[in-house]
Amino acid sequence: MDPKPDAVVLLSGGLDSATTLAIATDMGFACHALTFRYHQRHLIEIESARRVASALNAASHRIIDIDLAQFGHSALTDPAIPVPKDRPHIGVPSDIPITYVPARNLIFLSFAAAFAETISAFDIFIGTNATDYSGYPDCRPEFTSSFESTANLATAATTTSHRKFKIRTPIIEMSKSEIILTGTRLGVDYSLTHSCYDPAPDGSPCSRCDSCILRRKGFRDANLTDPLIYPD
Amino acid sequence: MDPKPDAVVLLSGGLDSATTLAIATDMGFACHALTFRYHQRHLIEIESARRVASALNAASHRIIDIDLAQFGHSALTDPAIPVPKDRPHIGVPSDIPITYVPARNLIFLSFAAAFAETISAFDIFIGTNATDYSGYPDCRPEFTSSFESTANLATAATTTSHRKFKIRTPIIEMSKSEIILTGTRLGVDYSLTHSCYDPAPDGSPCSRCDSCILRRKGFRDANLTDPLIYPD
Repeated sequence: MDPKPDAVVLLSGGLDSATTLAIATDMGFACHALTFRYHQRHLIEIESARRVASALNAASHRIIDIDLAQFGHSALTDPAIPVPKDRPHIGVPSDIPITYVPARNLIFLSFAAAFAETISAFDIFIGTNATDYSGYPDCRPEFTSSFESTANLATAATTTSHRKFKIRTPIIEMSKSEIILTGTRLGVDYSLTHSCYDPAPDGSPCSRCDSCILRRKGFRDANLTDPLIYPD
Repeated sequence: MDPKPDAVVLLSGGLDSATTLAIATDMGFACHALTFRYHQRHLIEIESARRVASALNAASHRIIDIDLAQFGHSALTDPAIPVPKDRPHIGVPSDIPITYVPARNLIFLSFAAAFAETISAFDIFIGTNATDYSGYPDCRPEFTSSFESTANLATAATTTSHRKFKIRTPIIEMSKSEIILTGTRLGVDYSLTHSCYDPAPDGSPCSRCDSCILRRKGFRDANLTDPLIYPD
């Protein structure tokens, strides 16, 4: 039996990336998960990522330290900026919310390409979604497609061989309920995941940020119960 | 008088990036220098970058910590891998030397885009050179051109306004002697710069790595004296 091909999977500990890891595993890849401690306000994300990587039997899991808080300008890295609640219109690209972290996915994918190159992996998975999302520019398919071309010009592995990186975004066109139904079918335990942008000190979700609103609607639309406990 | 437009300039402390900073300053930009402490073997680079930024009156200078050594696979981050010496053919893209650091310029430019976005700068300078260089894939003009497109899809600043990032590579087509002559005309003090991949403990250059060979040839071709002291 051939050994499984290696893939790098970006894993935040949220619902989308957990489902993406399950899909990549189901496709037959040995999945090397990559999580970033980027000075986000809520380190519960890192613990969720650890639990998800373990539950889904990732081949390896690395946590990389980078300081994106030093650039500021995001509610996810600056405790002085409040996380918006109860936004009526979520996912409008011309109205990017303050939870956007400048160039985050560009930086994350660049590290993923570096890591992939050193383990001779050519498949990189990212759980971006352009349907039920906050409107971030770096979640659009045209961004990941462009990144793929750039990464293939940036690296030695793709210059001296015929192998090319493939940036895989298996959930990019799914609705949140489709993501949840897919993950449920593949055995994702969503009680291990964390989505809230502004959790309480004990880690429980706020229920009113974009991410909680999209997640709760997704479970409702899928006719499933979210295992997380919400305050309302 | 209009205030100067802001630019982000990647600054390693080497000859090429010092010259690039001088060119960007001469073009009328307020230059915000960005240096990476990426667990490179020789931290003398960081000190050189500080001195160069100060001598050229950079508007600001940030040093960013990222750990590229954890990925290994490069003589510049792994002390167990020897730096190649006296290579007969330097700059052949099909023969990328072990001093290549996986996806380094991709990662550096991604951070530069994040930083630029937060200070509303749209000009990013990088001192890549595709003539007298070690053959690294991420020094080719097609890489920086592709990165520019990707960065313009990745960021909020370029999505919600008509402004677009411009990745500027003013020395990319110059020979090393042209770079040195240009920098000299603009007042760069090359005694502050550092180029060697494998310096002695006191910081003096080895004279035999790719970088020393290219630098020394550049000064010879320019009919100028390199202010650094070489062991031979």
